[in-house]
Amino acid sequence: MKRRDFLGALAAGAACRLHAAPSPRIEASTIRSQIEALSIFGRPAGGTFQDGVSRIGYSDSDIAGRKFVIDLMKGAGAEIRIDAAGNIFASRRGTDPSLPPLLFGSHIDSVPGGGNFDGDLGSLSSIHILRLLNDLHIETRRPLTAVVWACEEASFSGTSLNGSRIAAGQSKPGELDQVSRGMTKAEAIRRIGGDPSHIEQARIEKGKYHAYLELHIEQGGTLAREDVPVGVVDGIVSIDDYEAVITGVTNHAGTTPMPDRQDALIAASALTLAVREVVLSEPGAQVGTVGHMEVSPNAVNVIPGEVRMSIEFRDLSSAKIARLGEKIRARAVAIANETRTEIRITHAGHNESAVAAPEVQRAIESAAGRLRLGTRHLPSGAGHDAQMMATVMPMGMIFVPSIGGISHSPKELTTWQDCVNGANVLLEAVLDLAG
Amino acid sequence: MKRRDFLGALAAGAACRLHAAPSPRIEASTIRSQIEALSIFGRPAGGTFQDGVSRIGYSDSDIAGRKFVIDLMKGAGAEIRIDAAGNIFASRRGTDPSLPPLLFGSHIDSVPGGGNFDGDLGSLSSIHILRLLNDLHIETRRPLTAVVWACEEASFSGTSLNGSRIAAGQSKPGELDQVSRGMTKAEAIRRIGGDPSHIEQARIEKGKYHAYLELHIEQGGTLAREDVPVGVVDGIVSIDDYEAVITGVTNHAGTTPMPDRQDALIAASALTLAVREVVLSEPGAQVGTVGHMEVSPNAVNVIPGEVRMSIEFRDLSSAKIARLGEKIRARAVAIANETRTEIRITHAGHNESAVAAPEVQRAIESAAGRLRLGTRHLPSGAGHDAQMMATVMPMGMIFVPSIGGISHSPKELTTWQDCVNGANVLLEAVLDLAG
Repeated sequence: MKRRDFLGALAAGAACRLHAAPSPRIEASTIRSQIEALSIFGRPAGGTFQDGVSRIGYSDSDIAGRKFVIDLMKGAGAEIRIDAAGNIFASRRGTDPSLPPLLFGSHIDSVPGGGNFDGDLGSLSSIHILRLLNDLHIETRRPLTAVVWACEEASFSGTSLNGSRIAAGQSKPGELDQVSRGMTKAEAIRRIGGDPSHIEQARIEKGKYHAYLELHIEQGGTLAREDVPVGVVDGIVSIDDYEAVITGVTNHAGTTPMPDRQDALIAASALTLAVREVVLSEPGAQVGTVGHMEVSPNAVNVIPGEVRMSIEFRDLSSAKIARLGEKIRARAVAIANETRTEIRITHAGHNESAVAAPEVQRAIESAAGRLRLGTRHLPSGAGHDAQMMATVMPMGMIFVPSIGGISHSPKELTTWQDCVNGANVLLEAVLDLAG
Repeated sequence: MKRRDFLGALAAGAACRLHAAPSPRIEASTIRSQIEALSIFGRPAGGTFQDGVSRIGYSDSDIAGRKFVIDLMKGAGAEIRIDAAGNIFASRRGTDPSLPPLLFGSHIDSVPGGGNFDGDLGSLSSIHILRLLNDLHIETRRPLTAVVWACEEASFSGTSLNGSRIAAGQSKPGELDQVSRGMTKAEAIRRIGGDPSHIEQARIEKGKYHAYLELHIEQGGTLAREDVPVGVVDGIVSIDDYEAVITGVTNHAGTTPMPDRQDALIAASALTLAVREVVLSEPGAQVGTVGHMEVSPNAVNVIPGEVRMSIEFRDLSSAKIARLGEKIRARAVAIANETRTEIRITHAGHNESAVAAPEVQRAIESAAGRLRLGTRHLPSGAGHDAQMMATVMPMGMIFVPSIGGISHSPKELTTWQDCVNGANVLLEAVLDLAG
């Protein structure tokens, strides 16, 4: 739906509207000031807002950012709880405490060198909704719970969605012993206030919440390109993460003849190009990426003896990305033979695709209609905490445009008007679903 | 010359012998205990001798290793001087102080994840020669100076042979402002006791020394394969170092369609394979290596926006490696076009090939002959401090076998017998050249 093509939706939405008082609205200036305030935590030294953020999950800057949002939650008059996985819940009473609460939120951690909108927009909007309803003395039948999930981005090899995955009961055996950036995941969770020795207590049982809503930037270019302010997410793609370890022979770069070399970086380079070739070998919108590579010993005058690299495939079809995984394993065997190296590929993680609940999608469309904002349905190529929640409750996501489709970059940008449009759609949908 | 084919050389060597007293000899156990003692500085935590060493030039472990060798020099009764570049000189008087001293030595810094023989053998043997001559009250006409050069391996991009290069008057404008591992080269030199503000004082004028001798492991497989205990180096290959910076666009690995990507790691992988192809496109023994690669932001779920990588070519012919450099530049232009990235290649360093002086080569051959050790002439594919000294005095190098030709690796290994053979050849050649 285009921006101006809203009249039918508006009429349909108004008919569903239960809340009679003048509609509460979030101001763009409020969202802007909060996003700018949060951007300080993890900002590169000497940088500005435009230099983006590196607020890696469980890091010191993540902890500082979490303290900032906890203070906002307190200011919103919410009751605060940190679960065993380190997820932060801020709750507000409903007029009917017997009803399961409505859950909505996002995350505040970022990739290294990320932007200031991914996660932050949905988290801060959710907290602000609690504050606004308090300030205006607006009550809802259902209790409301805003959530900030711990470590949505991958800070441990192959495991993103750390907090929401644990809450969905999908943590893996041994996961807490994984080591990254010098600490185990158990230590990481403990330092943000979680309780890894009782991690099972973080699990959300089906029926505990009414539904889950998440506002997020699109991170792709569809909405911006088509000039549509609000995306209604149909579902979230499936992801397969692999780690490849290539072992060659470390040797002197000057004295080892070319035919004698067993160069791990030559093999890694061939494997990186093979990932792209394998992805392009089938029609469709699937993607594949080598984003992480560590070369050892990584010196100008030494033939690399080991390379560790990530391989990631995404598509709405789990079967298709499983097939791409088999294809890259076959290519790796051939490359190892050609380069006289050893290549071990381990499956580091799988995120199943997730479908948004039709009733939550309808609530989002209605909310956008009441706000006279055009909508478009689209899938999410990015993983989100929402996909974990989809396994334990009805889920829906609101997307707003990313300029140029750029994300996971300091250049990630959404206009303040688009930010506040999304926040108000979330507010309207919350009021609708919470009664 | 094979091990057993020594009689002619023995006779020739004995005829040249000036020193009449019973020949001093270094014991294998002495060399072994000193190499093992030095190996502690920069050893991986919890490791053993077999785990090799990371004694990066100018690092804390380098400084600790330098203190160890300075104490050895003091124990040898030598007069110690640290020049403005941080090179350590240990001097012993001659009976004719008017004669230019004989210089001999090597280095003690290593590559990351290196072995315990590269540099250490020549450095420790040189210092021990001073001690042995003192203990046995053996005098020489010429003064003797043992030297430990600062940072022979590349710790700043593209500049290896740091200490000896400065001593040869070949430091480059702006070199002291280069930054690596969080400090400028000026700061690095200052922390090892050098004086970067008077760096020109480190320069060795022609005529100051009589000649330079360096004992080193071969780092290639020729001597070990042919079972020859002593190599007489004809010359040292020329090296061209380049740094390539590839700039693409950092973006989300899930939401960016394959055709829209400007992936710096795809371009870097193609360029890495192109380096190998360019080297193999001509007949000859030239080599080319990509040893160092840094991917940014280096996260599993982010398309790499920047890659920095080294490119190195080596051959006895400077013209040939210059041609390979032009070929890789042409390939880079094509790869940048295909991947829609920008590739900037800068020439980071050039080591000219160096020829060993015939009279020093003859002294080494004679010394080996007197010790009944077979010799073989060979070029050095590795760069050495000796090539810098070749520009300011007659130079010669003694090689001993590297098992399997492995070097710049914890697996680098030379038998203790081959180590002490080399040390005694150095001792004999020193006594010959110093009179």
